[in-house]
Amino acid sequence: MAKLTVVGIGPGNLLDMTQRARQAIEQARVVVGYHTYIRLVEPMLDGLGKEIIGTGMMQEIDRCRMAVEKAAEGRDTVVISSGDAGIYGMAGLVLELVLARPAENRPEWGGVIAGVSAVQASAAVLGAPLMHDFAVISLSNLLTSWETIEKRVRLAAEADFVLALYNPKSKRRTENIARVQEIVLRYRDLATPVGIVTGASREGEQKVLSTLADFTKEEINMFSLVIIGNSQTYVKEGWMLTPRGYEKKDSGLGASR
Amino acid sequence: MAKLTVVGIGPGNLLDMTQRARQAIEQARVVVGYHTYIRLVEPMLDGLGKEIIGTGMMQEIDRCRMAVEKAAEGRDTVVISSGDAGIYGMAGLVLELVLARPAENRPEWGGVIAGVSAVQASAAVLGAPLMHDFAVISLSNLLTSWETIEKRVRLAAEADFVLALYNPKSKRRTENIARVQEIVLRYRDLATPVGIVTGASREGEQKVLSTLADFTKEEINMFSLVIIGNSQTYVKEGWMLTPRGYEKKDSGLGASR
Repeated sequence: MAKLTVVGIGPGNLLDMTQRARQAIEQARVVVGYHTYIRLVEPMLDGLGKEIIGTGMMQEIDRCRMAVEKAAEGRDTVVISSGDAGIYGMAGLVLELVLARPAENRPEWGGVIAGVSAVQASAAVLGAPLMHDFAVISLSNLLTSWETIEKRVRLAAEADFVLALYNPKSKRRTENIARVQEIVLRYRDLATPVGIVTGASREGEQKVLSTLADFTKEEINMFSLVIIGNSQTYVKEGWMLTPRGYEKKDSGLGASR
Repeated sequence: MAKLTVVGIGPGNLLDMTQRARQAIEQARVVVGYHTYIRLVEPMLDGLGKEIIGTGMMQEIDRCRMAVEKAAEGRDTVVISSGDAGIYGMAGLVLELVLARPAENRPEWGGVIAGVSAVQASAAVLGAPLMHDFAVISLSNLLTSWETIEKRVRLAAEADFVLALYNPKSKRRTENIARVQEIVLRYRDLATPVGIVTGASREGEQKVLSTLADFTKEEINMFSLVIIGNSQTYVKEGWMLTPRGYEKKDSGLGASR
């Protein structure tokens, strides 16, 4: 049986891909992915004589099924997934499909290759907003009930987690983010810093620093990642920072804000 | 002024480093880091004629101050940090130190280069446990009050987040993890899957799959990362999976568990 591997290619620039991801793609005979990501890794595929299977965005399940099929037929296959394949990516679906097959007809599990996720690339652009405990929540209610999402937002706000929001808004889902703002405002100041990064690490990357009171007025779309600071997060000269607590020790930083 | 960059080198194997991180280290004239991580990147430094500054683990602040000083003196400098420098790493401290200096005597901020964090490498080893919303919490009460940590664990458990626990145990902190178990058990079943990965991506990497009832009996140390599943997480043939919800759609996976 050939090997099936799920590869996180990073947020959107080949520079942010790990060496392990690169090797897996180079060694595979079949590369499967959403066509936008296939285009992204295209410079790497050139001349390597691989079979490339790119499909549209809403066809995740078919795409992953095809990958499992290719590997079961005996060709080493990778499924590429943007960011970290293990965070809202393709890792789970592919592993579920593999395990759903009878053991004697199953490709070898090549594992998940972790990559830099959008939340990390966005945090880096904003400064250092994730230096303390944080919660990662997707606002897409396509596969999760809005009730569950809202409960998570509320409890995470109460717990004073930094909040990292994936899928904050799409053409169809425009109200979810306003509802999140309303909930978090019950627990945090109007002035709480909020960072919005759109297309992190990609061409045309945009960064906006705002506040909990105002951030919903900014452009937010399906390529945006929103980070809401905790009660200690501050902005200094354009950088968003969540202190880890060193200022309590002898760093001499306590007075500098 | 020279440039100061904070570089996440990934969880502990050069294969997991991004190309961007590699380039930053290669281009720097001074490389500063905890000596264990300096040793890790040593194969990359050989023959490049850089100044290398490695210090012990408890000397973060001095180490980062030195890095800022070197850059202010006019030498391009990188601070290396394991995993993602922006997640419990050196990004925040270095940025705070830079911004604490008067503007005219400040190195250029080269930014944070994101890397694969321990939670991601651990998740990949376990299967796909982070496919749905998750909360990242450090159990170290060195810089955070235990009261705050406990509150976060409780609310994250109530919110049904997958929990990723950094610093679950050290020689001095042996009771925190048992307390976490007790709290999470108020909200989740005894059989909830718990994955423990020690030294993810490093030599001697260990993976243990256990349950919320039993996981504290396993070996957990300062190199371990603990992932507690949410109410939907399951284990199948040795792999830990949190479904994203595709089984509600037409994937044919609903009946396979």
